[in-house]
Amino acid sequence: MELYSGHINKLIEELAALPGIGGKSAQRLAFYLINMPQDKVNRLASSILEAKANVRYCRECYTLTDQEICPVCANQNRNHRLIMVVENTRDMAAYEKTGKYEGVYHVLHGAISPMLGIGPGDIKLKELVNRLEGDVEEVIIATNSSLEGETTAMYISKLIKPVGIKVTRIASGVPVGGDLEYIDEVTLLRALEGRVEL
Amino acid sequence: MELYSGHINKLIEELAALPGIGGKSAQRLAFYLINMPQDKVNRLASSILEAKANVRYCRECYTLTDQEICPVCANQNRNHRLIMVVENTRDMAAYEKTGKYEGVYHVLHGAISPMLGIGPGDIKLKELVNRLEGDVEEVIIATNSSLEGETTAMYISKLIKPVGIKVTRIASGVPVGGDLEYIDEVTLLRALEGRVEL
Repeated sequence: MELYSGHINKLIEELAALPGIGGKSAQRLAFYLINMPQDKVNRLASSILEAKANVRYCRECYTLTDQEICPVCANQNRNHRLIMVVENTRDMAAYEKTGKYEGVYHVLHGAISPMLGIGPGDIKLKELVNRLEGDVEEVIIATNSSLEGETTAMYISKLIKPVGIKVTRIASGVPVGGDLEYIDEVTLLRALEGRVEL
Repeated sequence: MELYSGHINKLIEELAALPGIGGKSAQRLAFYLINMPQDKVNRLASSILEAKANVRYCRECYTLTDQEICPVCANQNRNHRLIMVVENTRDMAAYEKTGKYEGVYHVLHGAISPMLGIGPGDIKLKELVNRLEGDVEEVIIATNSSLEGETTAMYISKLIKPVGIKVTRIASGVPVGGDLEYIDEVTLLRALEGRVEL
């Protein structure tokens, strides 16, 4: 027999298809949603639909935003000759949180991954190259320190270097506050290779 | 500055208010939802609204269901003189999954918790007492083995015993497959108290 009735099962299925939500959490969430006051349920459903309907790519940097041009690109006090390339909007937000980066961004929306069949044409690389026709001094590659992120970084550097623009990669090493004992060997070797004189 | 634009922030806030979803997961989910195809987004939003709109209490046992009377209560092959009291619909589903319980249920939708200010009047207890006016042989209390669950079990047994109906409590002890070494002392003592002759 079915444990729950139709509408409950359907909701559980939809929720379980979201990332990071397993079967048990989906059940818990479903009953929480059903027991929520009607106005809160409406608000959640409309937030989902409105975000989907109104959020688009920034015309400049391709981050997800409500506006034609995102607040970072629209800010004339930032250095538009310095472009940091990130994999997604959340990574951009992570750097924005530091409050110290003065340049602008370019959001790829992914990384090259032969394993997942994601090639250079599937991420916003052509758009990056187009931006380089303007007045750009340096491109900082801040893709993740994963296999995909490194592959993408290599690809971009090979693509841009011939144009004559400076290309840099954010440092890889021991995280601040990190205990050497718990850090993997690859990171330890990276930290050694990237050592700087004091 | 705000890290994300309005609609994205609103969605993240709504998601982070759900149980078991922290700030980081809410961000991840929000971007996942925004990147999902439009038809899937619509389906998710309508599943939420439809579940909320169509799911109600079973007239008999107060479980959450699409129908006036849930499939368990509607099934005449089940023993309607045997009522298992559970805290919520998920607990009922857990017993249904065993496939061995022949009786019906009564769903309290909570447990007595002086800490959270939930009294006997806040859960479906009056409704349970009303059911006892019919032909009932035994009430099995299957509330959780937590402080709240035990308090509720005690309260119900004091309420029902004077009526002359048999009241039982599901056994508390070492879970099947459980390793004694990792089980808390209270459970170990319960298992000892509740030992049965072989």
